[in-house]
Amino acid sequence: MTYEELSIGTAISSWKLAITRLDQMFSSLRDKDLQREVAPGRNRVFYLLGHLTVAHDRLFPILGLGDRLHPELDEDFFTNPDRTFPEDDISATALRQAWSEVNSKLTADLVRLRPEQWMERQSAVSDEGFAKDPLRNRLALLISRTNHASFHAGQIRLAS
Amino acid sequence: MTYEELSIGTAISSWKLAITRLDQMFSSLRDKDLQREVAPGRNRVFYLLGHLTVAHDRLFPILGLGDRLHPELDEDFFTNPDRTFPEDDISATALRQAWSEVNSKLTADLVRLRPEQWMERQSAVSDEGFAKDPLRNRLALLISRTNHASFHAGQIRLAS
Repeated sequence: MTYEELSIGTAISSWKLAITRLDQMFSSLRDKDLQREVAPGRNRVFYLLGHLTVAHDRLFPILGLGDRLHPELDEDFFTNPDRTFPEDDISATALRQAWSEVNSKLTADLVRLRPEQWMERQSAVSDEGFAKDPLRNRLALLISRTNHASFHAGQIRLAS
Repeated sequence: MTYEELSIGTAISSWKLAITRLDQMFSSLRDKDLQREVAPGRNRVFYLLGHLTVAHDRLFPILGLGDRLHPELDEDFFTNPDRTFPEDDISATALRQAWSEVNSKLTADLVRLRPEQWMERQSAVSDEGFAKDPLRNRLALLISRTNHASFHAGQIRLAS
């Protein structure tokens, strides 16, 4: 393997591991368990499942991989805090399915990126911003989202 | 910057960010706040501060960077669960200092590694294991520990 393949391969392998661990945690919880709060008065697991689905879905346009799959989830799980609305608009089954669908497509797309594409700027960063800070590339975003997933995985573990 | 510098620089920048965020969380908590549990019946922040200090201290030998600074913390914070012993053996001040000391030295050492050293095997992996899986390199370990830090940061946030 070339250096490029090794370094990107390492980052993708870490991403896959974070998703697999979350998959296992979500699978171990029944639909009604998803209603548990990770700590008293804090987010429900159900909200975090939606929140992570949205965070990953938003990577498609930011990484230049195409359109989002589930922009309709933003209002409930990203732009507003948990329990903003009295009832959940989506069933646990549909939310689990959106989570799986987003991660499967995203991971398949990530694996297809060429090494040089990983070092190109994120679409949210301007040319000037990127000239000043060449670390604001696609790879940085993947590592950042992997850490974001781990951050919430630590919380979900408390309700598992 | 070369591809090697960019990919390693991205991973180190993500590590530094994770440490900075934890530093901010720990600084915002008074010594007595460190005694809070992250959720009812779960680890105290004090334990997680020690646990992360040990996890990072253990990287020195695993990454071939020299001896550990605080092996004496293992029993209280790594090999046993929280509150195994009726009293804490170390003061909050000393534990905060160990945390800072370990991360400062480790980060300084990481920055000095050459690109090719990042792709060498971890000392805990055999030659045969590494031949089968070349992704078990130093870079993979840094990314893994960064995610481990984020995992517990998510929990500590609940007590902040």
